[in-house]
Amino acid sequence: MSELTLVIGNKNISSWSFRPWILLKQSGISFQEIPMKLFTAEYAASIDKHSPSGKVPVLNDNGLQIWDSLSISEYLAEKFPEKELWPKDTATRAQARSVVAEMHSGFSAMRTHLGMNFCGRISKDIPADALKDITRVQAIWSECLQTFGGPFLFGKKFGIADAFYAPVVARFQTYGVELSPKASEYANTISGLPAYLSWGEGAKAELQ
Amino acid sequence: MSELTLVIGNKNISSWSFRPWILLKQSGISFQEIPMKLFTAEYAASIDKHSPSGKVPVLNDNGLQIWDSLSISEYLAEKFPEKELWPKDTATRAQARSVVAEMHSGFSAMRTHLGMNFCGRISKDIPADALKDITRVQAIWSECLQTFGGPFLFGKKFGIADAFYAPVVARFQTYGVELSPKASEYANTISGLPAYLSWGEGAKAELQ
Repeated sequence: MSELTLVIGNKNISSWSFRPWILLKQSGISFQEIPMKLFTAEYAASIDKHSPSGKVPVLNDNGLQIWDSLSISEYLAEKFPEKELWPKDTATRAQARSVVAEMHSGFSAMRTHLGMNFCGRISKDIPADALKDITRVQAIWSECLQTFGGPFLFGKKFGIADAFYAPVVARFQTYGVELSPKASEYANTISGLPAYLSWGEGAKAELQ
Repeated sequence: MSELTLVIGNKNISSWSFRPWILLKQSGISFQEIPMKLFTAEYAASIDKHSPSGKVPVLNDNGLQIWDSLSISEYLAEKFPEKELWPKDTATRAQARSVVAEMHSGFSAMRTHLGMNFCGRISKDIPADALKDITRVQAIWSECLQTFGGPFLFGKKFGIADAFYAPVVARFQTYGVELSPKASEYANTISGLPAYLSWGEGAKAELQ
């Protein structure tokens, strides 16, 4: 039995849960998941026992609670150095942490107007501020792919930066966002990963 | 001449800039600062040369640009291990990263309704969602002070977690937020730090 458990929200909508989940899954780290249904009375009544912040995701490692997708990722990078979840080179790692932090605290217009709906296919007019976010995301992807050679943002290994942008790939799919050829290639790489497809299966099953 | 430069916004209002600034200053790390005036034509015209995201703060280490307050902090923690900017113990470090990440991505109601205005003293009714954030901040502080003995969040050393909550101390001062005795004690510790006072002097000077 694995000692790591990850408490997550609904797979169709919980973009924050998706980040550490795909990081663990795609990296081949064994863990158990505890699914919670967001916005239910049961969630309200029981989340406090899992999560000091009252939010998902939370990683539990033998009683140690780590909440928030980014602190979980940092913890996993330290615990499994052989997985190279961050780039090994100092300057590259600083750049990876920058694009992850930008995602972690920013892109609020994109988040608001293109809420994650993994299984949904939605046609809507995208407001200018969200389009600006979409342009910036594509600039980050292009810059990283060009500098580090792809197919992942920081080279040949799937890492924390890719995990943080995986929910964005899902948003782009859902809302049919038109992408540059380079960004489109990256989105295809991510959406073709076994872990990405497996999350999608889970999302679909939850909706049935 | 220091090789580290930190690009920051107006000291009176740029809470994000305050975090790495007070971290560097209070830790005795030498750096140069490049002040930018937010929301000006000059800012719009020149920020791109400093910052890939178009936002402050940005740390420049001999040409390497690191943007966002959290990735800057992680970079500094790696570059100056002797400063122990994160707690040394693995579990404690995970907890510190969790409270920092919670601040980095959350508390949007508090941020919206209690915008940082370092030198201002403002009386206003605080909406319920911001009060909820204030309660959670105090719970974090109390839990940390009790577990690690104070006077800082993770014990005897000022670290990244304190740097991330320093702008919150300023917000509480500005809006006259009533605090629990424990939270009040911590706020006094932070607002009495030489680096905190020095930022305040800078903010005052900028307004004159």
